[in-house]
Amino acid sequence: MAKRTSLSGFPEWLPSGRIVEQHILDELRTTFELHGFGSLETRSVEPMHELLRKGETSKEVYVLSRLQDRNNPHRSQKDDELGLHFDLTVPFARYVLENAGRLVFPFRRYQIQKVWRGERPQDGRFREFTQADIDIVAQGELAFHHEIELPLVMLDALGRLPIPRATILVNNRKIVQGYCQGIGVENIDDALRAIDKLDKIGDDGVRAEMAKHGIADHQANQLLALAAIRGTTEVIEQVRQLGVSTPLMDEGLSELDALLMETEQRVPGGVVADLKITRGLDYYTGTVYETILEGHENLGSICSGGRYDSLASDGKRTFPGVGLSIGVSRLVSRILADNLVEASRSVPTCVLVAVNSEDTRGESNRIADQLRARGIPVEVSPSSAKFGKQIRYADRRGIPFVWFIDEDGNSAIKDIRSGEQQSADPSMWVPSDEDRYPTVRIVG
Amino acid sequence: MAKRTSLSGFPEWLPSGRIVEQHILDELRTTFELHGFGSLETRSVEPMHELLRKGETSKEVYVLSRLQDRNNPHRSQKDDELGLHFDLTVPFARYVLENAGRLVFPFRRYQIQKVWRGERPQDGRFREFTQADIDIVAQGELAFHHEIELPLVMLDALGRLPIPRATILVNNRKIVQGYCQGIGVENIDDALRAIDKLDKIGDDGVRAEMAKHGIADHQANQLLALAAIRGTTEVIEQVRQLGVSTPLMDEGLSELDALLMETEQRVPGGVVADLKITRGLDYYTGTVYETILEGHENLGSICSGGRYDSLASDGKRTFPGVGLSIGVSRLVSRILADNLVEASRSVPTCVLVAVNSEDTRGESNRIADQLRARGIPVEVSPSSAKFGKQIRYADRRGIPFVWFIDEDGNSAIKDIRSGEQQSADPSMWVPSDEDRYPTVRIVG
Repeated sequence: MAKRTSLSGFPEWLPSGRIVEQHILDELRTTFELHGFGSLETRSVEPMHELLRKGETSKEVYVLSRLQDRNNPHRSQKDDELGLHFDLTVPFARYVLENAGRLVFPFRRYQIQKVWRGERPQDGRFREFTQADIDIVAQGELAFHHEIELPLVMLDALGRLPIPRATILVNNRKIVQGYCQGIGVENIDDALRAIDKLDKIGDDGVRAEMAKHGIADHQANQLLALAAIRGTTEVIEQVRQLGVSTPLMDEGLSELDALLMETEQRVPGGVVADLKITRGLDYYTGTVYETILEGHENLGSICSGGRYDSLASDGKRTFPGVGLSIGVSRLVSRILADNLVEASRSVPTCVLVAVNSEDTRGESNRIADQLRARGIPVEVSPSSAKFGKQIRYADRRGIPFVWFIDEDGNSAIKDIRSGEQQSADPSMWVPSDEDRYPTVRIVG
Repeated sequence: MAKRTSLSGFPEWLPSGRIVEQHILDELRTTFELHGFGSLETRSVEPMHELLRKGETSKEVYVLSRLQDRNNPHRSQKDDELGLHFDLTVPFARYVLENAGRLVFPFRRYQIQKVWRGERPQDGRFREFTQADIDIVAQGELAFHHEIELPLVMLDALGRLPIPRATILVNNRKIVQGYCQGIGVENIDDALRAIDKLDKIGDDGVRAEMAKHGIADHQANQLLALAAIRGTTEVIEQVRQLGVSTPLMDEGLSELDALLMETEQRVPGGVVADLKITRGLDYYTGTVYETILEGHENLGSICSGGRYDSLASDGKRTFPGVGLSIGVSRLVSRILADNLVEASRSVPTCVLVAVNSEDTRGESNRIADQLRARGIPVEVSPSSAKFGKQIRYADRRGIPFVWFIDEDGNSAIKDIRSGEQQSADPSMWVPSDEDRYPTVRIVG
């Protein structure tokens, strides 16, 4: 267990845990860039009025105040208050609006940053955590094929990580909304909110919830019949057999069909339709996504998102998009807590250059520089103590090699795992690719 | 100019500026790891009592409050208040104390994170900015040779960046403090604070400041004579000629001598002694460092730090260390504002695969997957518009290559910079190393 949390909800890792996290972030970045997503960072704070636009999430915001303004009674608290962002979507929307004239659309960006939520920390819920988002945003119109592209990018990314198999569950808001229209349910938001709780409160709970909002029993049953459908391309026919049809619903079905056909062909089993997924109150208007990890379904969705018709709008222009967001900290926390992975060592160092005496530390420094010039991570021993002690220094960190220089200036390198020692030339010697940097492997 | 600041003090970059910043962060990370420093991240917040320990900086802290606690009159404001960290040293000290039993000393870590200061933003001063720190911390005793090692690591790192030549200016607190003892100045802190302002207020200003604190005119003149000394190894003799000698001062001089000798040999001209450097009120006890950029001296120090005897202590154990910190945002802001560097393109994408019609988008996707499997960043054209339009899409982003598939399924690749087109095999074709990823080059 490489996690240390001295302040509840604010996770920190030990060096070996950080190596696992770095490995995951590196793989995500590499994959996103292979798919043509560019990096973006936005500031960590937004004016409170930007953060509170969505209403519901307002209670989770951390508000900032400058310490020296605290005791200044003349300062109005409201006019320019700032809060920490609670996701990467709100700041990205603001960024796109502000910079639209300098961006080229469709704009593809990934964003890996910390976000903060002032909520009560629970198991797996953090107050500070890292998210990794990808979005494609257009100006005016966004082609549907991007709704197929995005989960494929995420499957490519998740497939490179040292984690159990991920499955992306999809639905289409148009189906649920069109279905509601077809069966005469008018308060669609209430219906979506109730279905969203299905896993938590069960069929009866959903019925009770719907009844409260004036949805009739037969309507609730019809909605539950839809929500029970799960599978690959066969689900299209199953939904049709429910006997409801509206233009919006048909549009949604044909989009879902196209998505399942293409993804099944490229990553068999990677994407599964699950008609109960609604993504609650979010602003999605087309495909919605959640992602479960095999054997870790209780972790909930590790990667969610969807299509939105208007991420941002300034009245004149509108920016539709599609996005997916990985909860990196939650993922890292789980794989560390369950010891699913392990780093080959806790430091980047591949070679420790031994020091014979403080007078000859310069010689060891020169060897180290030669090795670094060829991209090998090297430390020089901090002390010129007995070699046994220097070897122990390497051993405690998992540094695989110790470099010795004899009195004639000849070099030898010892693999301290096997004990094998051989003479070596500092301008030639290279470690194996596996030993050069720390590696992360799945345990067991 | 790739900077956009819609909120004063909170810088954001456009995609091409972010590529420059990423390049700089990547080079720093690579260099730090080559020298055996491991990555660490600490949470962004600390309890206020941790942040206020240093007193003087208290006014710069951003305090957090949960929005829903605002209107709760029963909640005590004080007991568990959190603030955003204003540097990476305070959180690192706390982390070392908390985890000492799980760390191996001397502990070498780098830390690249955002920090926040609630101060009035001025030119080049940000309220949110990225710092890149390296520290070596020991338990009990830290050998002096690490004070020589650290500036060499930073020179290696800075030398790889697309920035003007950096020079690290050094001094040793023991010299100044020993000198003060030797000339009978008792309020050493006041003397240091006054010398620290020398560049801003000049000799007369420093004299006036010192007079205020009861430092006699002849003492002020002696301190100014010391502060005027600057150069390489010859400075040792120049300081000795001032005719003051105490054991502490001699110890400092011999450390400075060793530092200058070794660094001059390994990076000629990279380190220069400057006896007026004191690092104000900080907690340093040995070598102190500042770094100036050739032609950009007005930017102030871009990389500062020093040796401290007790970064952290819990009464029983004490942890001395030496650290240096680069102000990354300030550096990036300057090189972008002055157009000193430029990115070869604004997206990671190397190849745009053209789409003949929406019916054959699948073919283009398969080509893209083949290229990505060999590590080439690829996008598929978002539209199947006329080829001229697809080429313009690539051109506006600086994507160098467009891939075409003819009706028989044969492929050709066009370098849109030269217009050259040739047939290509998606399982074989590779771009040059320079074209594969965006590159960053010094302009002019």
